[in-house]
Amino acid sequence: MTGKLYLVGAGPGNPKLITLRGVETLKEADVVIYDRLVPEELLSYAKKESELVYAGKAPGKHFMEQDEINEKILEECRKGKVVVRLKGGDPYFFGRGEEECEFATSHNIPCEVVPGIPSFIAASSYSGIPLTNRRLSSSVSIITGREAKEKKKPRVRIEEISLASDTLVILMGVSDIKEILKKVADVRGSDELCAIITDATLPTQKTIVGSISNVLKRVDEEEIRNPAVIIIGKTVGMRGYLWKKA
Amino acid sequence: MTGKLYLVGAGPGNPKLITLRGVETLKEADVVIYDRLVPEELLSYAKKESELVYAGKAPGKHFMEQDEINEKILEECRKGKVVVRLKGGDPYFFGRGEEECEFATSHNIPCEVVPGIPSFIAASSYSGIPLTNRRLSSSVSIITGREAKEKKKPRVRIEEISLASDTLVILMGVSDIKEILKKVADVRGSDELCAIITDATLPTQKTIVGSISNVLKRVDEEEIRNPAVIIIGKTVGMRGYLWKKA
Repeated sequence: MTGKLYLVGAGPGNPKLITLRGVETLKEADVVIYDRLVPEELLSYAKKESELVYAGKAPGKHFMEQDEINEKILEECRKGKVVVRLKGGDPYFFGRGEEECEFATSHNIPCEVVPGIPSFIAASSYSGIPLTNRRLSSSVSIITGREAKEKKKPRVRIEEISLASDTLVILMGVSDIKEILKKVADVRGSDELCAIITDATLPTQKTIVGSISNVLKRVDEEEIRNPAVIIIGKTVGMRGYLWKKA
Repeated sequence: MTGKLYLVGAGPGNPKLITLRGVETLKEADVVIYDRLVPEELLSYAKKESELVYAGKAPGKHFMEQDEINEKILEECRKGKVVVRLKGGDPYFFGRGEEECEFATSHNIPCEVVPGIPSFIAASSYSGIPLTNRRLSSSVSIITGREAKEKKKPRVRIEEISLASDTLVILMGVSDIKEILKKVADVRGSDELCAIITDATLPTQKTIVGSISNVLKRVDEEEIRNPAVIIIGKTVGMRGYLWKKA
Protein backbone atom coordinates (compact mmCIF):
# COMPACT_ATOMS: atom_id res chain seq x y z
CA MET A 1 0.00 0.00 0.00
CA THR A 2 1.46 3.32 -1.05
CA GLY A 3 0.25 6.74 -0.07
CA LYS A 4 0.71 9.87 -2.08
CA LEU A 5 2.75 13.03 -1.90
CA TYR A 6 1.29 16.39 -2.83
CA LEU A 7 3.86 19.13 -3.29
CA VAL A 8 1.72 22.22 -2.82
CA GLY A 9 2.48 25.88 -3.38
CA ALA A 10 0.92 27.89 -0.56
CA GLY A 11 1.37 31.14 -2.44
CA PRO A 12 2.94 34.39 -1.23
CA GLY A 13 1.73 34.56 2.36
CA ASN A 14 -1.83 35.86 2.36
CA PRO A 15 -3.95 32.79 3.15
CA LYS A 16 -6.54 33.78 0.52
CA LEU A 17 -3.96 33.38 -2.24
CA ILE A 18 -3.71 29.59 -2.23
CA THR A 19 -5.52 27.76 -5.05
CA LEU A 20 -8.70 25.72 -4.69
CA ARG A 21 -6.69 22.62 -5.60
CA GLY A 22 -4.23 23.41 -2.84
CA VAL A 23 -7.05 23.54 -0.28
CA GLU A 24 -8.47 20.26 -1.62
CA THR A 25 -5.17 18.48 -1.01
CA LEU A 26 -4.96 19.89 2.53
CA LYS A 27 -8.42 18.49 3.29
CA GLU A 28 -7.25 15.09 2.10
CA ALA A 29 -3.95 15.13 4.01
CA ASP A 30 -3.05 12.76 6.83
CA VAL A 31 0.24 14.60 7.34
CA VAL A 32 1.13 18.20 6.49
CA ILE A 33 4.80 19.19 6.47
CA TYR A 34 5.00 22.99 6.21
CA ASP A 35 7.71 25.59 5.80
CA ARG A 36 8.29 28.81 7.68
CA LEU A 37 6.74 31.20 5.16
CA VAL A 38 3.50 29.28 4.87
CA PRO A 39 0.47 31.04 6.44
CA GLU A 40 -0.58 29.11 9.57
CA GLU A 41 -4.26 29.74 8.75
CA LEU A 42 -3.95 27.19 5.95
CA LEU A 43 -3.32 24.40 8.43
CA SER A 44 -6.91 24.67 9.63
CA TYR A 45 -8.07 23.09 6.35
CA ALA A 46 -6.47 19.83 7.43
CA LYS A 47 -8.56 17.19 9.20
CA LYS A 48 -8.64 17.37 13.01
CA GLU A 49 -6.63 14.20 13.32
CA SER A 50 -3.97 15.17 10.76
CA GLU A 51 -0.39 15.43 11.89
CA LEU A 52 1.13 18.90 11.37
CA VAL A 53 4.90 18.99 11.07
CA TYR A 54 6.88 22.23 11.07
CA ALA A 55 9.94 22.01 8.82
CA GLY A 56 11.29 25.52 9.35
CA LYS A 57 13.60 26.58 6.50
CA ALA A 58 14.54 30.09 7.50
CA PRO A 59 17.64 31.05 5.53
CA GLY A 60 20.61 29.51 7.30
CA LYS A 61 18.68 27.72 10.04
CA HIS A 62 16.54 24.80 9.09
CA PHE A 63 14.37 23.20 11.70
CA MET A 64 14.38 19.88 9.89
CA GLU A 65 17.16 18.77 7.61
CA GLN A 66 16.12 17.81 4.08
CA ASP A 67 17.02 14.19 4.81
CA GLU A 68 14.65 14.17 7.77
CA ILE A 69 11.86 15.62 5.65
CA ASN A 70 12.45 12.99 2.98
CA GLU A 71 12.54 10.25 5.61
CA LYS A 72 9.23 11.42 7.05
CA ILE A 73 7.60 11.52 3.59
CA LEU A 74 8.83 8.01 2.84
CA GLU A 75 7.75 6.60 6.20
CA GLU A 76 4.23 8.02 6.01
CA CYS A 77 3.63 7.22 2.35
CA ARG A 78 4.76 3.64 2.94
CA LYS A 79 2.05 3.44 5.59
CA GLY A 80 -0.42 4.47 2.89
CA LYS A 81 -0.80 8.03 4.17
CA VAL A 82 -1.45 11.13 2.10
CA VAL A 83 1.30 13.68 2.75
CA VAL A 84 1.03 17.34 1.80
CA ARG A 85 4.35 19.15 1.60
CA LEU A 86 3.30 22.79 1.84
CA LYS A 87 5.84 25.31 0.58
CA GLY A 88 5.78 29.10 0.20
CA GLY A 89 5.25 30.46 -3.33
CA ASP A 90 5.47 27.84 -6.07
CA PRO A 91 7.25 24.48 -5.57
CA TYR A 92 9.08 24.58 -8.92
CA PHE A 93 10.05 28.26 -8.92
CA PHE A 94 12.97 28.78 -6.54
CA GLY A 95 11.16 26.37 -4.21
CA ARG A 96 13.39 23.28 -4.45
CA GLY A 97 10.26 21.16 -4.77
CA GLU A 98 11.91 19.22 -7.56
CA GLU A 99 14.35 17.70 -5.05
CA GLU A 100 11.50 16.29 -2.98
CA CYS A 101 9.57 15.15 -6.04
CA GLU A 102 12.67 13.40 -7.33
CA PHE A 103 13.11 11.65 -4.00
CA ALA A 104 9.49 10.50 -3.90
CA THR A 105 9.43 9.38 -7.52
CA SER A 106 12.65 7.40 -7.09
CA HIS A 107 10.88 5.51 -4.27
CA ASN A 108 7.80 4.92 -6.44
CA ILE A 109 5.65 7.27 -4.39
CA PRO A 110 3.12 9.04 -6.60
CA CYS A 111 3.73 12.80 -6.49
CA GLU A 112 1.42 15.56 -7.68
CA VAL A 113 2.70 19.12 -7.83
CA VAL A 114 0.15 21.88 -7.22
CA PRO A 115 1.38 25.28 -8.41
CA GLY A 116 1.24 28.37 -6.22
CA ILE A 117 1.41 32.12 -6.80
CA PRO A 118 5.08 33.08 -6.69
CA SER A 119 6.00 35.99 -4.42
CA PHE A 120 7.06 38.25 -7.30
CA ILE A 121 3.70 37.87 -9.06
CA ALA A 122 1.81 38.80 -5.88
CA ALA A 123 4.24 41.60 -5.02
CA SER A 124 3.40 43.10 -8.40
CA SER A 125 -0.40 43.22 -7.87
CA TYR A 126 -0.09 44.22 -4.24
CA SER A 127 2.22 47.16 -4.99
CA GLY A 128 0.58 48.46 -8.16
CA ILE A 129 3.61 47.66 -10.29
CA PRO A 130 2.87 45.62 -13.42
CA LEU A 131 5.74 43.43 -14.62
CA THR A 132 4.99 43.95 -18.29
CA ASN A 133 3.39 46.66 -20.38
CA ARG A 134 2.94 47.09 -24.11
CA ARG A 135 5.03 50.23 -24.20
CA LEU A 136 7.46 49.63 -21.37
CA SER A 137 8.32 45.95 -20.97
CA SER A 138 8.16 42.79 -23.08
CA SER A 139 10.60 40.71 -21.03
CA VAL A 140 10.94 39.82 -17.36
CA SER A 141 13.95 38.15 -15.78
CA ILE A 142 13.93 36.74 -12.28
CA ILE A 143 17.14 35.93 -10.49
CA THR A 144 18.14 34.89 -7.02
CA GLY A 145 20.37 37.22 -5.05
CA ARG A 146 21.70 34.31 -3.11
CA GLU A 147 23.79 31.64 -4.74
CA ALA A 148 23.68 28.17 -3.28
CA LYS A 149 27.06 27.63 -1.66
CA GLU A 150 27.75 24.16 -2.97
CA LYS A 151 27.27 25.27 -6.55
CA LYS A 152 30.18 26.14 -8.82
CA LYS A 153 27.91 27.16 -11.64
CA PRO A 154 25.53 28.50 -12.85
CA ARG A 155 26.55 31.93 -11.68
CA VAL A 156 23.87 34.56 -12.11
CA ARG A 157 25.11 36.90 -14.84
CA ILE A 158 23.50 39.91 -13.25
CA GLU A 159 25.02 42.57 -15.53
CA GLU A 160 24.16 40.70 -18.73
CA ILE A 161 20.64 39.94 -17.54
CA SER A 162 20.12 43.57 -16.46
CA LEU A 163 21.20 44.73 -19.87
CA ALA A 164 19.09 42.28 -21.84
CA SER A 165 15.76 42.40 -19.93
CA ASP A 166 13.19 45.14 -19.58
CA THR A 167 11.96 44.20 -16.10
CA LEU A 168 14.39 42.68 -13.63
CA VAL A 169 13.19 40.90 -10.48
CA ILE A 170 15.54 39.90 -7.69
CA LEU A 171 14.50 37.43 -5.01
CA MET A 172 16.35 36.69 -1.78
CA GLY A 173 18.51 39.72 -2.44
CA VAL A 174 18.31 41.54 0.89
CA SER A 175 21.57 40.45 2.46
CA ASP A 176 23.61 41.63 -0.55
CA ILE A 177 21.24 44.39 -1.65
CA LYS A 178 23.83 47.16 -1.99
CA GLU A 179 26.22 45.09 -4.05
CA ILE A 180 23.38 43.87 -6.28
CA LEU A 181 21.84 47.31 -6.86
CA LYS A 182 25.25 48.80 -7.63
CA LYS A 183 25.85 46.15 -10.28
CA VAL A 184 22.48 46.93 -11.85
CA ALA A 185 23.13 50.69 -11.68
CA ASP A 186 26.46 50.20 -13.46
CA VAL A 187 24.58 48.81 -16.42
CA ARG A 188 21.27 50.69 -16.36
CA GLY A 189 22.25 53.91 -14.65
CA SER A 190 21.44 54.95 -11.10
CA ASP A 191 18.27 56.80 -12.17
CA GLU A 192 16.60 53.53 -13.12
CA LEU A 193 13.41 52.95 -11.14
CA CYS A 194 13.45 50.38 -8.37
CA ALA A 195 10.96 49.01 -5.83
CA ILE A 196 11.52 46.85 -2.79
CA ILE A 197 8.44 45.08 -1.47
CA THR A 198 8.77 43.27 1.85
CA ASP A 199 6.14 40.94 3.34
CA ALA A 200 4.12 41.20 0.10
CA THR A 201 0.36 40.50 0.56
CA LEU A 202 0.61 40.56 4.38
CA PRO A 203 -0.73 43.33 6.65
CA THR A 204 2.93 44.17 7.36
CA GLN A 205 3.75 44.78 3.66
CA LYS A 206 6.10 47.69 3.04
CA THR A 207 6.87 49.14 -0.40
CA ILE A 208 9.85 51.38 -1.07
CA VAL A 209 10.02 53.04 -4.49
CA GLY A 210 12.55 55.38 -6.08
CA SER A 211 15.55 55.57 -8.33
CA ILE A 212 18.24 53.02 -7.56
CA SER A 213 20.43 55.71 -5.98
CA ASN A 214 17.50 56.91 -3.90
CA VAL A 215 16.59 53.41 -2.77
CA LEU A 216 20.23 52.69 -1.89
CA LYS A 217 20.11 55.61 0.56
CA ARG A 218 16.86 54.44 2.13
CA VAL A 219 18.23 50.94 2.60
CA ASP A 220 20.44 52.43 5.30
CA GLU A 221 17.60 54.30 7.00
CA GLU A 222 14.98 51.59 7.03
CA GLU A 223 15.37 48.06 8.16
CA ILE A 224 14.73 45.83 5.16
CA ARG A 225 14.46 42.14 5.73
CA ASN A 226 13.46 39.01 3.87
CA PRO A 227 11.14 38.00 2.35
CA ALA A 228 11.62 40.85 -0.09
CA VAL A 229 11.02 41.23 -3.80
CA ILE A 230 13.06 43.78 -5.74
CA ILE A 231 11.58 45.03 -9.03
CA ILE A 232 13.67 47.16 -11.37
CA GLY A 233 12.55 48.83 -14.59
CA LYS A 234 10.29 51.38 -16.21
CA THR A 235 7.01 49.75 -15.15
CA VAL A 236 7.82 50.71 -11.54
CA GLY A 237 6.79 54.23 -12.58
CA MET A 238 3.22 53.06 -13.24
CA ARG A 239 2.62 52.65 -9.51
CA GLY A 240 2.04 56.41 -9.34
CA TYR A 241 -1.26 56.17 -11.17
CA LEU A 242 -2.23 52.53 -10.59
CA TRP A 243 -2.01 52.51 -6.84
CA LYS A 244 -4.77 54.31 -5.05
CA LYS A 245 -5.66 52.15 -2.11
CA ALA A 246 -9.38 51.34 -2.37
CA MET B 1 -22.23 56.06 -5.36
CA THR B 2 -19.26 54.25 -6.85
CA GLY B 3 -18.89 50.54 -7.37
CA LYS B 4 -15.66 48.68 -7.49
CA LEU B 5 -13.52 46.93 -10.06
CA TYR B 6 -11.75 43.68 -9.29
CA LEU B 7 -9.11 42.71 -11.83
CA VAL B 8 -8.83 39.00 -11.22
CA GLY B 9 -6.36 36.44 -12.51
CA ALA B 10 -8.26 33.25 -13.35
CA GLY B 11 -5.05 31.24 -13.56
CA PRO B 12 -3.87 28.95 -16.36
CA GLY B 13 -7.11 27.24 -17.40
CA ASN B 14 -7.84 24.48 -14.92
CA PRO B 15 -10.75 25.84 -12.83
CA LYS B 16 -9.17 24.49 -9.60
CA LEU B 17 -6.19 26.79 -10.06
CA ILE B 18 -7.88 30.08 -9.23
CA THR B 19 -7.22 31.52 -5.76
CA LEU B 20 -9.69 31.63 -2.87
CA ARG B 21 -9.66 35.44 -3.13
CA GLY B 22 -10.54 35.19 -6.80
CA VAL B 23 -13.58 33.05 -5.99
CA GLU B 24 -14.61 35.51 -3.25
CA THR B 25 -14.68 38.38 -5.71
CA LEU B 26 -16.74 36.33 -8.18
CA LYS B 27 -19.32 35.67 -5.47
CA GLU B 28 -19.56 39.40 -4.84
CA ALA B 29 -19.77 40.41 -8.52
CA ASP B 30 -22.79 42.07 -10.12
CA VAL B 31 -21.07 41.93 -13.50
CA VAL B 32 -18.35 39.55 -14.72
CA ILE B 33 -16.46 40.47 -17.90
CA TYR B 34 -14.39 37.47 -18.95
CA ASP B 35 -11.79 36.67 -21.57
CA ARG B 36 -11.53 33.73 -23.93
CA LEU B 37 -9.01 31.67 -21.98
CA VAL B 38 -10.93 31.83 -18.71
CA PRO B 39 -12.50 28.50 -17.67
CA GLU B 40 -16.28 28.76 -18.01
CA GLU B 41 -16.74 26.73 -14.81
CA LEU B 42 -15.62 29.77 -12.84
CA LEU B 43 -18.66 31.74 -13.94
CA SER B 44 -20.85 29.48 -11.80
CA TYR B 45 -19.45 31.16 -8.67
CA ALA B 46 -21.24 34.36 -9.63
CA LYS B 47 -24.71 35.10 -8.22
CA LYS B 48 -27.67 33.87 -10.28
CA GLU B 49 -28.64 37.41 -11.20
CA SER B 50 -25.14 38.53 -12.19
CA GLU B 51 -24.53 39.71 -15.72
CA LEU B 52 -21.89 37.66 -17.58
CA VAL B 53 -20.17 39.45 -20.43
CA TYR B 54 -17.87 37.65 -22.88
CA ALA B 55 -15.03 39.90 -24.02
CA GLY B 56 -13.26 37.46 -26.34
CA LYS B 57 -9.62 38.42 -26.87
CA ALA B 58 -8.39 35.67 -29.12
CA PRO B 59 -5.18 36.89 -30.79
CA GLY B 60 -6.19 39.10 -33.68
CA LYS B 61 -9.93 38.92 -33.15
CA HIS B 62 -11.39 40.63 -30.14
CA PHE B 63 -15.05 40.23 -29.43
CA MET B 64 -15.19 43.51 -27.55
CA GLU B 65 -12.82 46.37 -28.22
CA GLN B 66 -10.87 47.62 -25.21
CA ASP B 67 -12.82 50.89 -25.34
CA GLU B 68 -16.08 49.00 -25.06
CA ILE B 69 -14.78 47.02 -22.09
CA ASN B 70 -13.68 50.23 -20.39
CA GLU B 71 -17.03 51.86 -21.13
CA LYS B 72 -18.89 48.91 -19.62
CA ILE B 73 -16.73 49.01 -16.48
CA LEU B 74 -17.33 52.74 -16.09
CA GLU B 75 -21.07 52.50 -16.67
CA GLU B 76 -21.58 49.69 -14.16
CA CYS B 77 -19.29 51.06 -11.47
CA ARG B 78 -21.03 54.45 -11.72
CA LYS B 79 -24.26 52.62 -10.95
CA GLY B 80 -22.57 51.31 -7.82
CA LYS B 81 -22.06 47.80 -9.18
CA VAL B 82 -19.20 45.46 -8.38
CA VAL B 83 -17.46 44.45 -11.61
CA VAL B 84 -15.07 41.50 -11.85
CA ARG B 85 -12.79 41.60 -14.87
CA LEU B 86 -11.67 38.00 -15.17
CA LYS B 87 -8.50 37.43 -17.17
CA GLY B 88 -6.43 34.33 -17.95
CA GLY B 89 -3.19 33.90 -15.98
CA ASP B 90 -2.17 36.94 -13.94
CA PRO B 91 -3.46 40.45 -14.73
CA TYR B 92 -0.06 42.15 -14.37
CA PHE B 93 2.04 39.53 -16.14
CA PHE B 94 1.54 39.82 -19.89
CA GLY B 95 -2.16 40.35 -19.10
CA ARG B 96 -2.56 44.07 -19.90
CA GLY B 97 -4.52 44.43 -16.67
CA GLU B 98 -2.58 47.60 -15.92
CA GLU B 99 -4.35 49.36 -18.80
CA GLU B 100 -7.75 48.63 -17.28
CA CYS B 101 -6.62 49.50 -13.78
CA GLU B 102 -5.22 52.78 -15.06
CA PHE B 103 -8.52 53.57 -16.76
CA ALA B 104 -10.55 52.79 -13.62
CA THR B 105 -8.23 54.68 -11.29
CA SER B 106 -8.28 57.75 -13.55
CA HIS B 107 -12.08 57.74 -13.16
CA ASN B 108 -11.82 57.35 -9.39
CA ILE B 109 -13.14 53.82 -9.43
CA PRO B 110 -11.52 51.72 -6.70
CA CYS B 111 -9.62 48.84 -8.27
CA GLU B 112 -8.25 45.76 -6.55
CA VAL B 113 -5.95 43.41 -8.44
CA VAL B 114 -6.10 39.73 -7.49
CA PRO B 115 -3.09 37.79 -8.73
CA GLY B 116 -3.41 34.54 -10.66
CA ILE B 117 -1.12 31.63 -11.48
CA PRO B 118 0.66 32.52 -14.72
CA SER B 119 0.58 29.92 -17.48
CA PHE B 120 4.33 29.30 -17.36
CA ILE B 121 4.27 28.50 -13.63
CA ALA B 122 1.47 25.97 -14.12
CA ALA B 123 3.04 24.53 -17.28
CA SER B 124 6.12 23.80 -15.18
CA SER B 125 4.30 21.75 -12.48
CA TYR B 126 2.01 20.07 -14.99
CA SER B 127 4.87 18.90 -17.20
CA GLY B 128 7.37 17.91 -14.51
CA ILE B 129 9.86 20.59 -15.55
CA PRO B 130 11.09 22.80 -12.71
CA LEU B 131 12.10 26.32 -13.73
CA THR B 132 14.97 26.52 -11.27
CA ASN B 133 17.29 24.06 -9.60
CA ARG B 134 20.29 24.51 -7.33
CA ARG B 135 22.65 22.89 -9.78
CA LEU B 136 21.06 23.77 -13.11
CA SER B 137 19.32 27.15 -13.00
CA SER B 138 19.44 30.31 -10.88
CA SER B 139 17.76 32.64 -13.36
CA VAL B 140 14.56 32.55 -15.38
CA SER B 141 13.67 34.94 -18.18
CA ILE B 142 10.21 35.17 -19.68
CA ILE B 143 9.65 36.88 -23.00
CA THR B 144 6.78 37.29 -25.40
CA GLY B 145 7.17 35.87 -28.88
CA ARG B 146 4.76 38.44 -30.21
CA GLU B 147 5.62 42.11 -30.25
CA ALA B 148 2.79 44.59 -30.04
CA LYS B 149 2.58 46.19 -33.46
CA GLU B 150 2.23 49.77 -32.32
CA LYS B 151 5.38 49.60 -30.26
CA LYS B 152 8.72 50.85 -31.54
CA LYS B 153 10.53 49.69 -28.45
CA PRO B 154 11.21 47.76 -26.29
CA ARG B 155 12.30 45.04 -28.66
CA VAL B 156 12.86 41.69 -27.05
CA ARG B 157 16.59 41.04 -27.19
CA ILE B 158 16.16 37.33 -27.60
CA GLU B 159 19.79 36.41 -28.29
CA GLU B 160 21.12 38.43 -25.36
CA ILE B 161 18.48 37.09 -23.01
CA SER B 162 19.13 33.51 -24.18
CA LEU B 163 22.80 33.97 -23.49
CA ALA B 164 22.39 35.55 -20.07
CA SER B 165 19.67 33.36 -18.50
CA ASP B 166 19.70 29.76 -17.40
CA THR B 167 16.03 29.01 -18.07
CA LEU B 168 14.27 30.76 -20.93
CA VAL B 169 10.47 30.84 -21.21
CA ILE B 170 8.68 32.04 -24.33
CA LEU B 171 4.98 32.90 -24.28
CA MET B 172 2.80 33.54 -27.31
CA GLY B 173 5.57 32.18 -29.48
CA VAL B 174 3.71 29.67 -31.63
CA SER B 175 3.20 31.70 -34.78
CA ASP B 176 6.92 32.48 -35.06
CA ILE B 177 8.20 29.36 -33.35
CA LYS B 178 10.76 28.34 -35.97
CA GLU B 179 12.34 31.77 -36.15
CA ILE B 180 12.45 32.05 -32.36
CA LEU B 181 13.95 28.59 -31.79
CA LYS B 182 16.57 29.17 -34.47
CA LYS B 183 17.64 32.39 -32.76
CA VAL B 184 17.97 30.56 -29.45
CA ALA B 185 19.85 27.67 -31.09
CA ASP B 186 22.31 30.14 -32.63
CA VAL B 187 23.28 31.21 -29.14
CA ARG B 188 22.86 28.06 -27.07
CA GLY B 189 23.40 25.37 -29.65
CA SER B 190 20.77 23.15 -31.23
CA ASP B 191 21.28 20.39 -28.63
CA GLU B 192 19.84 22.60 -25.89
CA LEU B 193 16.79 21.02 -24.30
CA CYS B 194 13.38 22.45 -25.13
CA ALA B 195 9.77 21.74 -24.17
CA ILE B 196 6.55 22.98 -25.69
CA ILE B 197 3.49 22.66 -23.47
CA THR B 198 0.12 23.43 -25.06
CA ASP B 199 -3.17 23.72 -23.14
CA ALA B 200 -1.26 23.42 -19.86
CA THR B 201 -3.39 22.12 -16.94
CA LEU B 202 -6.29 21.15 -19.21
CA PRO B 203 -7.29 17.57 -20.15
CA THR B 204 -6.06 18.42 -23.66
CA GLN B 205 -2.53 19.28 -22.48
CA LYS B 206 0.24 18.13 -24.79
CA THR B 207 3.94 18.19 -23.91
CA ILE B 208 6.69 17.93 -26.53
CA VAL B 209 10.25 17.54 -25.26
CA GLY B 210 13.57 17.22 -27.03
CA SER B 211 16.62 19.09 -28.24
CA ILE B 212 15.83 22.30 -30.09
CA SER B 213 16.69 20.66 -33.42
CA ASN B 214 14.47 17.70 -32.57
CA VAL B 215 11.58 19.89 -31.50
CA LEU B 216 11.91 21.98 -34.66
CA LYS B 217 11.34 18.82 -36.70
CA ARG B 218 8.30 17.83 -34.67
CA VAL B 219 6.77 21.27 -35.06
CA ASP B 220 6.19 20.36 -38.69
CA GLU B 221 4.64 16.98 -37.88
CA GLU B 222 2.33 18.01 -35.06
CA GLU B 223 -0.08 20.84 -35.04
CA ILE B 224 0.99 23.22 -32.30
CA ARG B 225 -1.31 26.04 -31.39
CA ASN B 226 -1.69 28.68 -28.72
CA PRO B 227 -1.86 28.82 -25.78
CA ALA B 228 1.60 27.33 -25.60
CA VAL B 229 4.50 27.74 -23.21
CA ILE B 230 8.02 27.08 -24.47
CA ILE B 231 10.65 26.23 -21.83
CA ILE B 232 14.33 26.05 -22.80
CA GLY B 233 17.24 25.02 -20.62
CA LYS B 234 18.86 22.24 -18.62
CA THR B 235 15.99 21.77 -16.16
CA VAL B 236 13.90 20.36 -19.02
CA GLY B 237 15.99 17.23 -18.61
CA MET B 238 14.60 16.67 -15.10
CA ARG B 239 11.22 15.72 -16.55
CA GLY B 240 12.64 12.26 -17.20
CA TYR B 241 12.70 11.38 -13.52
CA LEU B 242 10.13 13.83 -12.09
CA TRP B 243 7.23 12.95 -14.31
CA LYS B 244 5.60 9.65 -13.56
CA LYS B 245 1.93 10.22 -13.87
CA ALA B 246 0.32 9.18 -10.60
